[in-house]
Amino acid sequence: MDTVKYSDIIAAQATLRGVTKNTALLHSKSFSRMSGCNCYLKMENLQTTGSFKVRGAYNRISKLTEEERKKPVVAASAGNHAQGVAYSASSLGLKSTIFMPSFTPPSKVIATRFYGAEVVLTGDSFDDAYQVSQEYCREHDATYIHPFNDPMIIAGQGTVGLEIFQQLPELEMVVVPIGGGGLISGIAIALKTLNPQIKIIGVEAAGAASMYESRKAGEIVTIPHVDTIADGIAVKTPGGLTYSLINEYVDDLITVTDDEIAHTAYLMLQRTKNLAEPSGVASVAAILNHKYDFGGKNVAAIVSGGNINMSLLEQIVEQGMLQEGLRTTMQVIIPDQSGELNKLTWLFTQFKISIQNIEHIRSTSSVPIGRVMVVCTVNLQNQEQLEQLTDELKSRGLQVRVLN
Amino acid sequence: MDTVKYSDIIAAQATLRGVTKNTALLHSKSFSRMSGCNCYLKMENLQTTGSFKVRGAYNRISKLTEEERKKPVVAASAGNHAQGVAYSASSLGLKSTIFMPSFTPPSKVIATRFYGAEVVLTGDSFDDAYQVSQEYCREHDATYIHPFNDPMIIAGQGTVGLEIFQQLPELEMVVVPIGGGGLISGIAIALKTLNPQIKIIGVEAAGAASMYESRKAGEIVTIPHVDTIADGIAVKTPGGLTYSLINEYVDDLITVTDDEIAHTAYLMLQRTKNLAEPSGVASVAAILNHKYDFGGKNVAAIVSGGNINMSLLEQIVEQGMLQEGLRTTMQVIIPDQSGELNKLTWLFTQFKISIQNIEHIRSTSSVPIGRVMVVCTVNLQNQEQLEQLTDELKSRGLQVRVLN
Repeated sequence: MDTVKYSDIIAAQATLRGVTKNTALLHSKSFSRMSGCNCYLKMENLQTTGSFKVRGAYNRISKLTEEERKKPVVAASAGNHAQGVAYSASSLGLKSTIFMPSFTPPSKVIATRFYGAEVVLTGDSFDDAYQVSQEYCREHDATYIHPFNDPMIIAGQGTVGLEIFQQLPELEMVVVPIGGGGLISGIAIALKTLNPQIKIIGVEAAGAASMYESRKAGEIVTIPHVDTIADGIAVKTPGGLTYSLINEYVDDLITVTDDEIAHTAYLMLQRTKNLAEPSGVASVAAILNHKYDFGGKNVAAIVSGGNINMSLLEQIVEQGMLQEGLRTTMQVIIPDQSGELNKLTWLFTQFKISIQNIEHIRSTSSVPIGRVMVVCTVNLQNQEQLEQLTDELKSRGLQVRVLN
Repeated sequence: MDTVKYSDIIAAQATLRGVTKNTALLHSKSFSRMSGCNCYLKMENLQTTGSFKVRGAYNRISKLTEEERKKPVVAASAGNHAQGVAYSASSLGLKSTIFMPSFTPPSKVIATRFYGAEVVLTGDSFDDAYQVSQEYCREHDATYIHPFNDPMIIAGQGTVGLEIFQQLPELEMVVVPIGGGGLISGIAIALKTLNPQIKIIGVEAAGAASMYESRKAGEIVTIPHVDTIADGIAVKTPGGLTYSLINEYVDDLITVTDDEIAHTAYLMLQRTKNLAEPSGVASVAAILNHKYDFGGKNVAAIVSGGNINMSLLEQIVEQGMLQEGLRTTMQVIIPDQSGELNKLTWLFTQFKISIQNIEHIRSTSSVPIGRVMVVCTVNLQNQEQLEQLTDELKSRGLQVRVLN
């Protein structure tokens, strides 16, 4: 079987019943207002294992022959596919061995082990881990589960499309993150069959736009390197099957920057109270940044996953606060006299500004003798407060520079 | 009318139809495993306005007379009640004026204005803002909407109880955060009427346990000050009505610490991908920290709200990482020679440890001449990595101290 039929997706939906969740399709008032379309979010970040990947993995593994079931199931992945395969294999009573690059975030390793897989940490890159997994498969005659370029994987992911159509029959556009292209391929086949008028838009990270480049070139292109915080969709080479399915069924491909992705993850938290990973919000970022003519349409964005590294989350929250003007760093030059720092911090108190970080620097050549530099990061109520504060400092004869 | 009847709650449910959401009751596998009970979460953080408060506010405001509707509706609140009143008044075509203390986090002020209220920022404490709101009510003959001590507010909050019973008829215990006590009073009346066997447990922040202290004393007690990150439930004096309803219907009161609350908010994000505010997870914190015999029972925790300050969220994420051993700060004494800092950072690279923050301190009396102190905060894969690193550093003759 070299392609995927609509009936494969219908069959997958039956296979997945009782295993995966029919995740909520949330209507977001905030995002609708910000984007000008009627914005719905398909919350696959709340899916079992934290992403849609379990749908394809379970569908694929459930099709193994008696003979194949005696051998371990193998995958190479630093992310959500690993958890999907581990969970699916365990649910079907099979053993799985997952090869993960050694830099894989601990939370993903722990989760994959928790779902019952044997995890082998190996190599400095995904490609290294992949090579080792292939050797293992040859040696042990084990079945390798590809993350996207497999008809049964694609059919499993396509069930997302069926669910959205059932949840919102008046759907007009769907926006889907693209890594290898398995998710959008499945969704596109499902939705174009149900209603060919529904537009299917794929979104890649600008730093890993291999499908976009391939489509432009008219053939599969390998991009030399990937550079994006959206690790879940950082793929150098599209699959042959997904490339041709996307050519056939997907209306358009667009890209979003890491800044757009990060700020969208922040807004998801703040407005919808949902944690999503960078890859998972590429779709929403496209909508909020008006990357296409979504105006007035019923648009569903797939929020494909929620497995985010906590230190990355921390950075996203901090960046969001800086962009909203809720935090700023400033340099103030004060007289080098006892009590002067106290005057400055007293002023912060008067303005109800809280100090995040403060440094009192005497040894710097950029400050005249008899003065010291105070570099402080403060949390603000709003941007006007910053103006009031700097005006006040200047009126007291102090030299102030806002660094960001 | 001085008390609340079950029929008031049924009536409120009809009033709220089409206004508030019947929020999801999620089953959490992670929290069930961690707590030993069958743990469900009632997601009022996903409620319209981000908390349950809109239920009571709308129910109360919808009962205003023709005469009262001509005057503005007034509330004093630094938090979710403000948003609930603003949204409800606007939905009913009424004007609202909300008095908020001047330190109120900007996100809450913005949201309250967005929902259509006139916001007056006044005073350094909630009590100040409250006093001003009372003067305003007298001057303008306006209706003050109490945050909890009002039968129609309590009846509105009680609809949470009806929904949970409909979602999980085999419910055995419910755990509810207590601030003023409106939410738990309503829920308790609903559930004890439907099934008197259901245990109702109230949870307060240890730093604001006014209801707990009042129950212990057998009379309403005002605690001298409140000290907790759970600002939404930091109440100095319980209401007279809620106090007596809780005495009648609630089985037990318990408290949780701020550390327990913060870590629970972290776990909520990590495991359920849901953002909740500290007050909102007090209930879950009680379950995860085994504050009561929940073993084997079907337990529903009310996650009462999701409106959290982003700088507090940042701290919660950082604390969570520290507690999980994913981040640590250490002091290393190295020779004061060119290339030594480079050797240290090279070692971090070998261990795939990323540097969060690093300081190279020469002027400290605690380090012998010819040495310098490096204080570095690093992100780890897991706790074992820290041991491996410190062992390696010691084997190279360096003095290492792990600070946290």
